[in-house]
Order: sequence, then structure tokens, then C-alpha cells
Amino acid sequence: MSGLLVVVSGPSGAGKSTVLKALIDSLPRGKFSVSMTTRAPRAGEINGQAYHFVTESQFVEMREAGGFLECARVFESAWYGTPKNHVLDDLSAGFDIILDIDVQGALQVRHSHPDAVFVFLAPPSMEELRRRLENRHTETPASLARRLETAAQEMERRGEYQYLVVNANDRAEETVDKLRAILVAEKCRTSRLECCLPMSL
Amino acid sequence: MSGLLVVVSGPSGAGKSTVLKALIDSLPRGKFSVSMTTRAPRAGEINGQAYHFVTESQFVEMREAGGFLECARVFESAWYGTPKNHVLDDLSAGFDIILDIDVQGALQVRHSHPDAVFVFLAPPSMEELRRRLENRHTETPASLARRLETAAQEMERRGEYQYLVVNANDRAEETVDKLRAILVAEKCRTSRLECCLPMSL
Repeated sequence: MSGLLVVVSGPSGAGKSTVLKALIDSLPRGKFSVSMTTRAPRAGEINGQAYHFVTESQFVEMREAGGFLECARVFESAWYGTPKNHVLDDLSAGFDIILDIDVQGALQVRHSHPDAVFVFLAPPSMEELRRRLENRHTETPASLARRLETAAQEMERRGEYQYLVVNANDRAEETVDKLRAILVAEKCRTSRLECCLPMSL
Repeated sequence: MSGLLVVVSGPSGAGKSTVLKALIDSLPRGKFSVSMTTRAPRAGEINGQAYHFVTESQFVEMREAGGFLECARVFESAWYGTPKNHVLDDLSAGFDIILDIDVQGALQVRHSHPDAVFVFLAPPSMEELRRRLENRHTETPASLARRLETAAQEMERRGEYQYLVVNANDRAEETVDKLRAILVAEKCRTSRLECCLPMSL
């Protein structure tokens, strides 16, 4: 049976990285999709792990050849995208693939893969989101304001996802359980099973 | 938040009673719906527990008043039905209500409550179903044949349910986990949440 393509979006500060890492670790056959980007590697980033690093011309060529499930240019500088071949190969091999992408990317994936599972991970409140971002001590007032504005815009689109999971403070385990439950339930959907029912009448 | 109405069907011998009992026990707020019937109570059956026992005229009057979520006359003798008021009151009070009903009943519920969750519980194979029914040593050859024929007819309708869970031998726990996951996932569906999101933008 082919794996599930699971698209997870949510504002920066919703806690996606932590819960998705825990989710992957808890799945028998789960994998992150590794994005491709034209931005320069940061110290310690290994090619093929955090990202596949490529040049702009390599990226554009692959994009024109339809090689991405979704891609976008972020803040008018670097390109980011999900390489299609890797994902489709892994799905065929039975892996559940988690795509941690933004709302725009999710809409692109929905267009080409309506059978994917779309989950929005939300913070418990905008006030809590602000608090989490401030506590990182890595944001300037301007970048904080920009992140909050982007978050508000993303939150407005949450209704376009099939599932909404609120990641409450100190409840990361509960959040992971809900995400796991969504995967288990989706694997029981008759619309996915009809082709390969274990029953012959 | 209102509870979930969960309709579970599946052939006799699929193991419904056992796994649904375990499911209810594991839910924080779960209840079976108690059916109403015109058949006579068997030894030990208490009114209001296994069934609500009523006379045929009481049943027919309630049916004509639209008092059932679903009802049917079984083998042209006794009536069975799910009283609407009890279920709706319990749902409003936040209970998840499990309806263990047949395919015909499920279709009636889908008509009036398309937001219910529809799960088909299947045996791993028809051979295994036959074995389980034979091992009960309660079936005559004629009743066994009738149950198997009914089972085959019900199995053909499984694609009309949203979820299919196969109850494999010695895997009742896994089956219960899947049913629980379906309930958890359904409670995260944005289509159920939009009215009562915990987030104000």
C-alpha cells in the first residue's frame, strides 16, 4: 500500500518542528521531504539533510521541467521547493511523507495531489504566538512584526485544510497523538482502500 | 462542543460487540445508543440496558411521529429502532454516541445526519467469518447460511462507509486503537471546528 502524503502548515512559532520530529520518530515508516533551495548553506547544514542546495539556474531548470510538487521564491530572494521525484518514490515505497510547507505551497500540492492529507497546526492564540516568538530572542522588532502579520494571514486560511490541530503549551505529546490519529484514520478511509481490500467476496 | 455520532456496521461475527465495548470504555465521554424493540425481553435482559422494550403500538406511534433516527422490522417480526431524542440529547451534552446498526439503518442515519461518522467493521475474510460463526456453536446450518449470505450482502456495501476497519484475529486492541484514532481525527476536522475555534484573530 502506498504511503500517505501529509501536508502540514502553520505559522512560525506554532511548534511545528518539534511535534513533526516527534511524529516522524513515532511512525513505523515516516519521512520528512527534504526541500531544495537556492539559498546558501548555513554553518553546519549538510547538503541533502536540512536542504538540497542547488544553484538558481539548476532550480529554475528543474522548475520549468515540472520537477517540483510546489515551489516559491521567498521574500524575493531564495527559491524553495519540494522535489517531486523523491516524494513520489518514497510514497510508492510505502513511506508516509510529511511536507512542512507554507499555505501557498499547500495549495499547489492540493491542486496536483488532492488525495494528500492537509493539516493546519495552530498556536492556542495569537498572544501565545507572540510570546513564543519573543522568547526566542532571535527576532528584531521588525522581523517579529512581519512574522506576526504573516501568521495572521496564514491563520485566515486554516479553514482550507482538512484538519486543524491546536498545539497548546506543554501539550506537545497530545498534539503528536492527534497527528498520529489523523494518519491512522486516513489509512482506514474506504476511498483509499477500495483498490486493495484484503477481502475477496 | 457537541459529541460525535458514530455509526458502526459490520456482519455478525466481525467482532463488533467486543471492540465497541472496549472502545466505549476507553473514551472519556462515550455511550452506546440503546435501541428500542418490540421483541420480548430474554432472560436477564433489563429494560433500558440491552434495549428499551415497548409494545408494537407504542413503537409504531413513535415511528409515525418521526421519533427514530433509523428503524426497521427484522425478519418480518420484531421492530428495532434508535430513539432520536436520547441520541440528540446525549450529543448536545458532549457525549460521543456509538450506534451499532445494520447497513439499512446506517443509510437512514446518513440521510438525516450526514455529519455522522460511518465505519464498517469487517472480518479479515469470509472464511474467517464462517469459522467464527461455527465456533459459536449456536447456529443451525440454516441460520449459519443465512448469516453468511447477509454478511456477503453487507460486505458489498462497505464502500459506502467513510472508514473500513478490518478486525483481524487476536488484534482486537489494534482495532480499538484504529476506531479511537478515527474519533480523534474526526474531532480535528476543520468542517466540525469552524464554528467554535479557540482562536480569535
